Amino acid sequence: ARLLSGLVGALASGQIRVIDLTQTLTPGFPQIALPPEMGQCWPFRIEEVSRYDERGPGWYWNNFSCGEHTGTHFDAPIHWISGRDLPNNSVDTIAVQHFIAPACVIDCSAEVQRDDDYLLSVADIERYEAAHGRIPKGAWVLMRSDWSKRRDPQAYQNFDQTGQHTPGPGTEAVRFLVEQRDVLGFGSEAIGTDAGQGQHLRPPYPCHYYMHGAGRYGLQCLSNLDLLPPAGGVLICPPLKIEKGSGSPLRVLALVGA
Amino acid sequence: ARLLSGLVGALASGQIRVIDLTQTLTPGFPQIALPPEMGQCWPFRIEEVSRYDERGPGWYWNNFSCGEHTGTHFDAPIHWISGRDLPNNSVDTIAVQHFIAPACVIDCSAEVQRDDDYLLSVADIERYEAAHGRIPKGAWVLMRSDWSKRRDPQAYQNFDQTGQHTPGPGTEAVRFLVEQRDVLGFGSEAIGTDAGQGQHLRPPYPCHYYMHGAGRYGLQCLSNLDLLPPAGGVLICPPLKIEKGSGSPLRVLALVGA
Ligand SMILES: Nc1ccccc1C(=O)C(=O)O
Ligand SMILES: Nc1ccccc1C(=O)C(=O)O
Repeated sequence: ARLLSGLVGALASGQIRVIDLTQTLTPGFPQIALPPEMGQCWPFRIEEVSRYDERGPGWYWNNFSCGEHTGTHFDAPIHWISGRDLPNNSVDTIAVQHFIAPACVIDCSAEVQRDDDYLLSVADIERYEAAHGRIPKGAWVLMRSDWSKRRDPQAYQNFDQTGQHTPGPGTEAVRFLVEQRDVLGFGSEAIGTDAGQGQHLRPPYPCHYYMHGAGRYGLQCLSNLDLLPPAGGVLICPPLKIEKGSGSPLRVLALVGA
Repeated sequence: ARLLSGLVGALASGQIRVIDLTQTLTPGFPQIALPPEMGQCWPFRIEEVSRYDERGPGWYWNNFSCGEHTGTHFDAPIHWISGRDLPNNSVDTIAVQHFIAPACVIDCSAEVQRDDDYLLSVADIERYEAAHGRIPKGAWVLMRSDWSKRRDPQAYQNFDQTGQHTPGPGTEAVRFLVEQRDVLGFGSEAIGTDAGQGQHLRPPYPCHYYMHGAGRYGLQCLSNLDLLPPAGGVLICPPLKIEKGSGSPLRVLALVGA
């Protein structure tokens, strides 16, 4: 109780700041594109219901449609076949205390600047830990790539004849984070937690495969990771409570010391 | 920083608990019904994209549609005509520190048990304050009615020939909370922050009118308010970042001392 009133006071005084890690949901925000014969995620669409007019004289509101994996979104274990039979594997059944957890931010922005397909390595993680301390059990690991600064949707999606080119974690890095560090999940600024070319890795989409197979989570299309400290921030990321939902768009916030 | 590591530790040890105040998003969850000539809010609809099958061999996911005011949801000032010209009045522009704030829970469950149309009064607020202390500036006031325990959608909506019958705040109580207590917003377990018969009050829908006109927020279709302490809890309620959104379904969490 003392801790909670301390938190409220620190938020009011600015001693703790709240940072918004969310991209705005707009019809123009790009979606992940899968091979055309497969089911596709809806882009965000919005339709006005009334705007202080004959459809509703005193009020303004909208209806909308999207995919569970549209915009800044959360991935639950049930999203992947490796997590299909785990307990509490959908957004409506995950233990809610998991939606508030510490965040470690590994800065790969220089590497990604040189290589759109950059894969985070175990050596990168070890270098992070040497500088900022060991990744605690139950923490989010967020890959800072500055990819969210690409405001042009084409540059953000970064397609060519061979597909999407965006950074992500390598297979060994994912296994290290799950098996050696017992992380809560992995977050990325790009459209997927896996690299754009992740279907060619072994196994395909290793981050989805190993994280969700171990009951861990994913966050994608994050923004403002350059405003977070490497360690010490706290992530707040509560997905919508969609019945048997595989994920959901959400508001992601971070608490950081001033 | 010390405070944030204390928070993480208290969550891990169970000294602080996280309570889910959210109703599950399902197609059966009832919507607010307006006169038929007016624009209506979509109910929640969900459509499978793939489920570890030929539409996506390794993954399961869904598309969905709903209104900004479907299920457990947040109301922004722009939702109401009284808030239409205020700064930062939509869910994408509200200052994000407002999404974490203390909660005062006024128990009206006995009164509502006797009267479906019960209106919270200034006397109820004064009685609350005599027992639990003054409502602090910037706090949420949540009306506990146990309405969320009505699991049957018809009983939850509670229609008869004269319309919807659900509890809410009286006009004077709303004005008292905004003008005398400077609250952040008002939350209810029923479909609206206003009573089901709120269109007959002066002004119509007084909670929407005065709260949003003063730049304050609303939360509706809350659940589990009976699990919160009258004072000392902290609400986490970050809406989706919908461009110019008037509100959004969201996950509402509360932090409480053990
Ligand atoms: N990589 C994928 C492959 C198939 C389906 C979805 C994904 C995602 O990245 C996602 O979760 O947004
Ligand atoms: N009372 C209303 C009248 C018109 C439109 C919406 C409402 C709501 O309660 C809402 O915000 O869900």
